[in-house]
Amino acid sequence: MQNVDKQIEPRYFDPAMPIADRGASGRRARIKIANEWLRQILSLLYQRRNLNRFEIIEQTGLNAASVSHALRYLLTRGVIHKTGGRDVGTGRRREVFALNAETGYFVALDLEGDRLRFALTNFLGDVRCRWEQRLQLREPLLPEKVVEGIGRVTRDLDRHQLSRVLAVGVSYPGLLDAEGRLSAVNLGWTKVPLVAVLKEAFHWPVFMERDKETCIHAESWLGAAQNCRNALFLIAEGGIGMGILSDRNHLIGARGFSGEIGHCKFVPGAQDICNCGQRGCLEAIASGVNVVRQYAERSRAEAASLSFVDVLERGRRGDGVALSVFERAGRAIGSALSTAISLLDPEIVILGGDLITAEDLMLPIIWDQIRLQTRPRSLEIVKIVVSGLGLDIRLKGAAALAFRNMLMSPELIQRMCAPVMQVVSEAV
Amino acid sequence: MQNVDKQIEPRYFDPAMPIADRGASGRRARIKIANEWLRQILSLLYQRRNLNRFEIIEQTGLNAASVSHALRYLLTRGVIHKTGGRDVGTGRRREVFALNAETGYFVALDLEGDRLRFALTNFLGDVRCRWEQRLQLREPLLPEKVVEGIGRVTRDLDRHQLSRVLAVGVSYPGLLDAEGRLSAVNLGWTKVPLVAVLKEAFHWPVFMERDKETCIHAESWLGAAQNCRNALFLIAEGGIGMGILSDRNHLIGARGFSGEIGHCKFVPGAQDICNCGQRGCLEAIASGVNVVRQYAERSRAEAASLSFVDVLERGRRGDGVALSVFERAGRAIGSALSTAISLLDPEIVILGGDLITAEDLMLPIIWDQIRLQTRPRSLEIVKIVVSGLGLDIRLKGAAALAFRNMLMSPELIQRMCAPVMQVVSEAV
Repeated sequence: MQNVDKQIEPRYFDPAMPIADRGASGRRARIKIANEWLRQILSLLYQRRNLNRFEIIEQTGLNAASVSHALRYLLTRGVIHKTGGRDVGTGRRREVFALNAETGYFVALDLEGDRLRFALTNFLGDVRCRWEQRLQLREPLLPEKVVEGIGRVTRDLDRHQLSRVLAVGVSYPGLLDAEGRLSAVNLGWTKVPLVAVLKEAFHWPVFMERDKETCIHAESWLGAAQNCRNALFLIAEGGIGMGILSDRNHLIGARGFSGEIGHCKFVPGAQDICNCGQRGCLEAIASGVNVVRQYAERSRAEAASLSFVDVLERGRRGDGVALSVFERAGRAIGSALSTAISLLDPEIVILGGDLITAEDLMLPIIWDQIRLQTRPRSLEIVKIVVSGLGLDIRLKGAAALAFRNMLMSPELIQRMCAPVMQVVSEAV
Repeated sequence: MQNVDKQIEPRYFDPAMPIADRGASGRRARIKIANEWLRQILSLLYQRRNLNRFEIIEQTGLNAASVSHALRYLLTRGVIHKTGGRDVGTGRRREVFALNAETGYFVALDLEGDRLRFALTNFLGDVRCRWEQRLQLREPLLPEKVVEGIGRVTRDLDRHQLSRVLAVGVSYPGLLDAEGRLSAVNLGWTKVPLVAVLKEAFHWPVFMERDKETCIHAESWLGAAQNCRNALFLIAEGGIGMGILSDRNHLIGARGFSGEIGHCKFVPGAQDICNCGQRGCLEAIASGVNVVRQYAERSRAEAASLSFVDVLERGRRGDGVALSVFERAGRAIGSALSTAISLLDPEIVILGGDLITAEDLMLPIIWDQIRLQTRPRSLEIVKIVVSGLGLDIRLKGAAALAFRNMLMSPELIQRMCAPVMQVVSEAV
């Protein structure tokens, strides 16, 4: 691996440097801006959004001169901008810096679930253009469809804008091998050379991340886990999975199979048949489709004509059958979280997927079950919240993935800092 | 924190350097031995025991010259020795290097359980002198007893040997605060300033580690998890706890409370009362004392007159009551491991404590329960073994803790490499 820390490019001529710092020959001094400074400052501004110079110095631990050089460099390149002064204790107004989110774009892909999601996002993961394609059940997806989807979210960009697309971030389900070949049940894929296909079709670097990781990283970079070192993310959709953040690192496991809590058994004697072929899995009881299935079975309704939101609405109106299904699902999830909290001691548990919409009905049941069976000491600090990132979480996570990887690549940092705007080219 | 990586001391004069490498003035060249080289080589020899020069170069990634300089330095200091040549493919015999385990000693303490354990160990954690003290139930332990215990395992050392005791490693239960004060139920302690007491009584550096971590680290450095990045260690004694190794790091949790699997519920409707006040905890069903309790209850025997080994012997002789108790305990542990394996995707699960002695009766039941309720994919690679480190595991772990920390301290590396033996002083 390239040792990016030792990289000291890019250099620039700074017209604002005092004369004393200039070379003996009277030429302008070349100030070396370490990529490490840029990386730390950009990553900080990404997460904290608005910071003054002193906060940046304090939180990066860089020395004041390095921060000033780097800030000036980023300002002249248009990567950051000043957002009006802010009153501080002394009454003085200080310059506040923020990331210029529209300096560059990422292509974000979410391959999980029953539809493909494509987005063009800015640096902060805000979706600027979106396209979705519903997957055909039992029909393998043609890899060209992925290329086509990326084409759709980027086709309205002019040549200049296209040059500001810096990378592709992909949130994938299933298993990716070392050669970049993806196997995923929902796509009907076995060892499809996705990375090679994307590299052939586009010139952008491609960064891939497993869906559970994308979620927990999105929460960690953009969402409720921003200041947490230890967090759990439970997502209930078609299936149920858990992302685990341990000391700010994602717990991946020996083969990338961690977080399979959806296939653990928490309801004694449950006979619900799971996709995996077993009986009584958490997923077979508490995933969105299985809530619908149980409701249909108990109320003798037609499952095909019902959605999760329908069952939810009936529950909210006091439908006893719907409430009993949510009770069962909530208690199963509560038992699962009780075990995960005892085992992993997180600061926060974030609920995502269908649980976001069903918060009002399910969270009280989940908490009740957790309290029933967890040692109080394990619950002293833990918070349980629903994700604020919504259904776009994996798209935002894929964009965050691209941003994080961009900071690790000196070449991409240089591309990010290439002058773009008229005012900037004048200043340089 | 001190940046030990940049440290380049100690230096030494090497009489064996070829003339070309000597300074222009004809003086002997000063070869700088980076602590980082010593650290990498010692840590490798600690784990692999016997390696030749080429294996060391390959596995540390250091360049050949650095390895040669460092090996020569360690040889002259008596820290490593050559252990006869070994035939390799070429037919040539190569020198094999090994750590000289008796070059220095550690004091190891195990404060968990119903007795204090003290040991003087060599570098490799082999116990050279041992002392135990049974704890009085319901009577707080006087901190002086700990000082006394350390005195007992070191009192037969002469002044020279005492100078080779390099550090104290402590495996502690309960909770240690930032000021080094320990709270632990089994010791009857609330915020006892243990670290301060030890520092006052002895001049050795003190390294502290939570008992679950000590176990998983001992397995990782000396035991079954040596080549694993992801491992679980389940220990059943008075209580049941789990140490989690994730990508070679110990998973600690937000407050150091991870691994509390002993207080999770895996047996539906179980009414067994746990130490923590709840009902149906794993620990209340499957810990050694609770196996004895259940046997006594079911057979109307007197629990006080029975030990875990007694119940085990009866089970081995076919006693139906004993077998039913082990069946229940084994299934509870199997359910717990099933969940932990699905969630954490380890390469290996190591069983310790009372489970070591009951392997023959319990492991088949544990495996059966795991297979019953785990998705086959999660079990493809995982191995379950009993710990080979026995009841000394925490003492060995505390010594491993001291060794690891010694390698991180330039001062202790220097003390480790201080010349000791006659032959060494002559060579230098």
